[in-house]
Amino acid sequence: MDVDAIIKNLNLKFRNIDGNKLLIAIATDKDKNVLMTAFMSKESLKKTFETGYMHYYSTSRKKLWKKGEESGNVQKVKEIYRDCDGDALLFVVEQTGWACHEGYYSCFHYKLDLENNRIYTVGDKFD
Amino acid sequence: MDVDAIIKNLNLKFRNIDGNKLLIAIATDKDKNVLMTAFMSKESLKKTFETGYMHYYSTSRKKLWKKGEESGNVQKVKEIYRDCDGDALLFVVEQTGWACHEGYYSCFHYKLDLENNRIYTVGDKFD
Repeated sequence: MDVDAIIKNLNLKFRNIDGNKLLIAIATDKDKNVLMTAFMSKESLKKTFETGYMHYYSTSRKKLWKKGEESGNVQKVKEIYRDCDGDALLFVVEQTGWACHEGYYSCFHYKLDLENNRIYTVGDKFD
Repeated sequence: MDVDAIIKNLNLKFRNIDGNKLLIAIATDKDKNVLMTAFMSKESLKKTFETGYMHYYSTSRKKLWKKGEESGNVQKVKEIYRDCDGDALLFVVEQTGWACHEGYYSCFHYKLDLENNRIYTVGDKFD
């Protein structure tokens, strides 16, 4: 697999995000549940393509990270989609365990109740 | 509805994206199909909360835009979720027509075939 050729062919638009050249990555499971969104550098995209497991870029730690490297909650890539303007990729993944470091299956576990200005958590807590 | 109080209570993390303070917004339909991702300024978030229709911020045109203002393909907000680190919101919307300006239901209509370094379009073209 010529990863550089693939990335070139993808015609991606890396944005300047907190001082880094990054893409937006969205991960869903096969049932289309949105698990998380995070950023990808070109290097993390290469690692993802090469290994078949999601690698992101942390703007706070300023480095590439393999999702689940410490927790074991890895994400195996099954399908990949690019959006029309090329600044975002959608990954359908096989999630081991749960996605959120707060112990929930999805990072989007805070539901807004606009009428009452309330936020409440939804979904089971695994950890 | 006190939109400023809601936004304050949400504890959001606006990132510096292409020189603007922005959030990541992901829109899905009720069947969890990811329609698009785009950015939101505080102003577009306010407009979205106040009107119940998705408003984004365009980094290229450097202004707020109501989704579907010209095409009629508006997105009515049904549910809202915040992610764990507060830099992204997930909106479940009722999509009128299609989401992508290229005429497809979803902006993520380019599927990657890594093995063959090919990209092909998926889904029906409506326009």
